[in-house]
Amino acid sequence: MFEEVLQNVRNRAPIVHSITNYVTVNDCANIILACGGSPIMADDVGEVCDITSICSSLVINMGTLNERTMQSMITAGKKANELGHPVVFDPVGAGASNMRNEAAERLLKEVKFSVIRGNISEIKFLATGSSNTQGVDASVADAITPENIDSVVAFAKSLSVATGSVIAITGATDIVANARKAYVIRNGHPMMSRVTGTGCMLTAVIGSFIGANPDSLLEAAAGAVAAMGLCGELAWKKLDQVDGGTGTYRILLIDAMSKLTVPMLKEGGKIEDR
Amino acid sequence: MFEEVLQNVRNRAPIVHSITNYVTVNDCANIILACGGSPIMADDVGEVCDITSICSSLVINMGTLNERTMQSMITAGKKANELGHPVVFDPVGAGASNMRNEAAERLLKEVKFSVIRGNISEIKFLATGSSNTQGVDASVADAITPENIDSVVAFAKSLSVATGSVIAITGATDIVANARKAYVIRNGHPMMSRVTGTGCMLTAVIGSFIGANPDSLLEAAAGAVAAMGLCGELAWKKLDQVDGGTGTYRILLIDAMSKLTVPMLKEGGKIEDR
Amino acid sequence: MFEEVLQNVRNRAPIVHSITNYVTVNDCANIILACGGSPIMADDVGEVCDITSICSSLVINMGTLNERTMQSMITAGKKANELGHPVVFDPVGAGASNMRNEAAERLLKEVKFSVIRGNISEIKFLATGSSNTQGVDASVADAITPENIDSVVAFAKSLSVATGSVIAITGATDIVANARKAYVIRNGHPMMSRVTGTGCMLTAVIGSFIGANPDSLLEAAAGAVAAMGLCGELAWKKLDQVDGGTGTYRILLIDAMSKLTVPMLKEGGKIEDR
Repeated sequence: MFEEVLQNVRNRAPIVHSITNYVTVNDCANIILACGGSPIMADDVGEVCDITSICSSLVINMGTLNERTMQSMITAGKKANELGHPVVFDPVGAGASNMRNEAAERLLKEVKFSVIRGNISEIKFLATGSSNTQGVDASVADAITPENIDSVVAFAKSLSVATGSVIAITGATDIVANARKAYVIRNGHPMMSRVTGTGCMLTAVIGSFIGANPDSLLEAAAGAVAAMGLCGELAWKKLDQVDGGTGTYRILLIDAMSKLTVPMLKEGGKIEDR
Repeated sequence: MFEEVLQNVRNRAPIVHSITNYVTVNDCANIILACGGSPIMADDVGEVCDITSICSSLVINMGTLNERTMQSMITAGKKANELGHPVVFDPVGAGASNMRNEAAERLLKEVKFSVIRGNISEIKFLATGSSNTQGVDASVADAITPENIDSVVAFAKSLSVATGSVIAITGATDIVANARKAYVIRNGHPMMSRVTGTGCMLTAVIGSFIGANPDSLLEAAAGAVAAMGLCGELAWKKLDQVDGGTGTYRILLIDAMSKLTVPMLKEGGKIEDR
Repeated sequence: MFEEVLQNVRNRAPIVHSITNYVTVNDCANIILACGGSPIMADDVGEVCDITSICSSLVINMGTLNERTMQSMITAGKKANELGHPVVFDPVGAGASNMRNEAAERLLKEVKFSVIRGNISEIKFLATGSSNTQGVDASVADAITPENIDSVVAFAKSLSVATGSVIAITGATDIVANARKAYVIRNGHPMMSRVTGTGCMLTAVIGSFIGANPDSLLEAAAGAVAAMGLCGELAWKKLDQVDGGTGTYRILLIDAMSKLTVPMLKEGGKIEDR
């Protein structure tokens, strides 16, 4: 099933509209291309409706949020909802500032998201209005462990009920859930956290996968999470051969996504039902 | 002649002012450096006249256009015109939104461009107000083929008459024309379309070439197009050796430009008169 | 002593708030991670106080200055001062436009900087209101030579007295000085000037080093300068092995920083007292 969602991205080449931050935007565009989509980054409120109308999906990432782009996110999100395009939300740094918290709250109220992807601290913040967020990284206090994984799965499902969105909580262990079903995914490599924007890139990949699979949002999101994690593993293997550091690792991640095949995902994906 | 325009870039190290998008700006700055120029990115309307005054040429790229930078583009463009500095225009995504279409129209009316570079869909839009633009990529329906190449060359020449600009239509086959003469260039590699911003990078290289060769705009633009395409080929050869993907290919493109020599361009350039 | 400042970055993993330009921001974030810090880029005036409050240090880089971010820089700088967080200033392109000159002047008046890092032309401009700045690169006329180095050291010390900041003048030879003491650092490689943003990246590394060593600002800044220069040398050695160009060199710089160890800095740092 996860192989099929990847195949659909490759066959359908969805155009993905991203309103995102200026830190990792180039990597997001390149990983959308690498997985098989086609990126458009446009954030002026005067054109986001036109742009999102010619796309298959929308990515909203609040990494370097500002007043101007906030309005564009709301406007584009509503238009995508109206057109029935899937929309993924990355609440980068939710919990780190009042402005960011209010923005996340407002986006959740005004836009219906197909998928919400964040680290555990960001997602907890969305659910409860408080968390241990420290900047843009998850707090250690919030980490998913073998002991608490069942309760985190239950939490993700209940947040999915509350929001109507597929919830993707990513970190060392990833959980992707809707109201009825969850996948626990164990792909990935710790080196991914030493490169900026691997979370943003994953959200961009989810945008591509849901654009090509609008009727299988849960499997599309889970497939994207497994694909990105597997690329993290493949990049690590290659990095070892070339004796590289974090700069090279970032490049190898995009390489891996551009060379990922359906059989590779079938063999390498570590996806478990819950 | 094309070798001379490259040599001039290396000798004169033109300072290139770019008002461009935040997606590919880093690659644009690095490829300007790689080809022999010196980049300055500055987009506040309060300083663009000062900045463009100390530069040799101006690049205007409307990739992530917004109201603020639109005004800066007009202001900088007029100042560059006043000073006699060559200006290149990249109408990214023309045809994709009303705002973008109006912006392109306004820029064409208020600024005299030395060179306009786009894919066939974007250039058709500028000429006729309609095209098959799909986002930021050329439409297949607009592709240059052996059957229609003569009519595309004639179209480019007539658009050059209408605008007073050298017209560079780039894709699998490139056409660079002024009112009297055209070059058809067959360098490049399909892999270039799998990396975001190769079009923007080419425009930045054109900015460097016309900055160093203000009296030979047609040859400067054609030389830049051939040089970039040749780098696409050289990067592909190297990619094969290292078994890389699209991430590595992007890096190798900039590597190739930084190592491109005059004899290499002389030998590898596939430029034909029309 | 310089080894200790690096060890502290690795142990304390300072969160570094950067208000910086959109050209080199991704490289800045990645090199902060590579040296051991944790980056947050946030520039809306509505959240910069919240964000800087959860960080260890603040980086202000005026590369693509605009009216909106100028206000954010002032607001964040004052907040960081109030909290006693170290702040580093990179006056990119000071001297190149009136707007930039006034911005630099205003920032120096309203914010107390722990460290100011620039090339000799930018620093001269800050000190005297005039220089030979040409765009964002140092003028040849301003270069540090064996003949003038004593006077440049004296100049740096006197500017430190005037501003209360550690002054880092970087180029082929680097000088890092406070009112009483200076270090002359001879690490680095000419290739660094062929990649955009190596100056910005150095400032980001200084931000990480002072965040982890708030009580040893001079040694933290000098250690950061030596570390970055040493990475330039290590990247060059590796580049030679892989026959790469400027694209690869940029990646190898970040690799080198991510793999730099305390013994390597101890052995390779060329730091001399003055």
